Amino acid sequence: MTYCVGIMLDSGMVLASDSRTNAGVDQVATFSKMTVFERHRERVIVLLSSGNLAMTQAVVNALRHQAHLEGGHEHIMNTPSMFGAATLVGNALREVQQRDGPYLLQRNIEASANFILGGQIAGEQQRLFTIYTEGNFIEATTDTPYFQVGEIKYGKPIIDRVINAHTPLTEAAKCVLISFDSTMRSNISVGLPIDLLIYENDSLRVGIQRRIKEHDSYFDMIHSQWGEGLKKVFAELPPPHWQD
Amino acid sequence: MTYCVGIMLDSGMVLASDSRTNAGVDQVATFSKMTVFERHRERVIVLLSSGNLAMTQAVVNALRHQAHLEGGHEHIMNTPSMFGAATLVGNALREVQQRDGPYLLQRNIEASANFILGGQIAGEQQRLFTIYTEGNFIEATTDTPYFQVGEIKYGKPIIDRVINAHTPLTEAAKCVLISFDSTMRSNISVGLPIDLLIYENDSLRVGIQRRIKEHDSYFDMIHSQWGEGLKKVFAELPPPHWQD
Repeated sequence: MTYCVGIMLDSGMVLASDSRTNAGVDQVATFSKMTVFERHRERVIVLLSSGNLAMTQAVVNALRHQAHLEGGHEHIMNTPSMFGAATLVGNALREVQQRDGPYLLQRNIEASANFILGGQIAGEQQRLFTIYTEGNFIEATTDTPYFQVGEIKYGKPIIDRVINAHTPLTEAAKCVLISFDSTMRSNISVGLPIDLLIYENDSLRVGIQRRIKEHDSYFDMIHSQWGEGLKKVFAELPPPHWQD
Repeated sequence: MTYCVGIMLDSGMVLASDSRTNAGVDQVATFSKMTVFERHRERVIVLLSSGNLAMTQAVVNALRHQAHLEGGHEHIMNTPSMFGAATLVGNALREVQQRDGPYLLQRNIEASANFILGGQIAGEQQRLFTIYTEGNFIEATTDTPYFQVGEIKYGKPIIDRVINAHTPLTEAAKCVLISFDSTMRSNISVGLPIDLLIYENDSLRVGIQRRIKEHDSYFDMIHSQWGEGLKKVFAELPPPHWQD
């Protein structure tokens, strides 16, 4: 499993992904699920991926390969819009599926992949998309300013409770780490390290990019104080006084 | 969707179910998913059901029908053990599936049903089971003293955080209601009223049985104070001080 989340706020974006992959409980490994395409002061495009690892790695490789080919074609490093970037990811995914799909199907493997794509290209506002396994996609709006992929349920309530468009970036980063903590507590197939990236709106460069590993002091503090805080709130709520 | 939970503690059990059913968003209705089989001072058996409503109602009807038939056969009101009761539920489910399954399959409907069965029969300790859609079942132990069926993820973390064998019944009831509140907040196909039953160990009679409807003052208090408490804990956690 995987957990990725991207949140778009007035002040910028917070994007994060875990890095645990597994093909059965006896085949657990660490792979980053965050890819950054950046040209300083011109574009920052962050891709978070979940699903079949062969498929998502093939998509990332195709995007990089296209960007290095000679010729006047559109690619992730020259497309003029985030919509164009989302289309390129969807197209790459469809090509991989066309190539690998029949061989997977022969062994009854239904491989899927989902992406979150966030960032900004000069001349446009920052934008956030999620790309489905069919290659189509939707864009976040102020009504729904975030996307999750993978194991989404455990970490969703805290985002719904505290995030809105005016939340400061550092508060959103704190919320994202609580969301990861809740997810990792309940699903052992989501695990550290967490790749976390903070993008400041209109900066057109990566702000903070941080890999949160085991024994990270801030994450450890979040983990213990959040748990203690919840228990305290629980203890302070009065029990029911229903009559037999 | 549905949400049901059964928790077994040293001091007894708390069992609860929501009552929203839906067949598409335009066909939403209220049906209780809790059935109680009780013979004062001799047995209390509580059945919580999730899944295809035609199937779960047919199972409950079969159990009731068997109990009213003449003859020396084993049924839910005379079986000497909770294990026997779980077997009867599993058998009834298999019979319904055998009868209705082929007709559902003709329309590509894969109907499933899951149950939680908890209670006590004189001469035995209290016991808690969950019955799978295949009719087989597992029993709770002190290591894992609770079962959930239906939309289980949103309401699981709070149970994991605060419940252990020594938790008092009223604290467990409070926890169950927070668990329902979290679930209903995130999944609109789980809804009020909540049927909640508290069984005191070795009492061999239903303790508190309560239907929690809209505007229930205790549940409203839980809803608002839990939400406020979480926001307060969140606000008190320091934001990260990472450098650019």
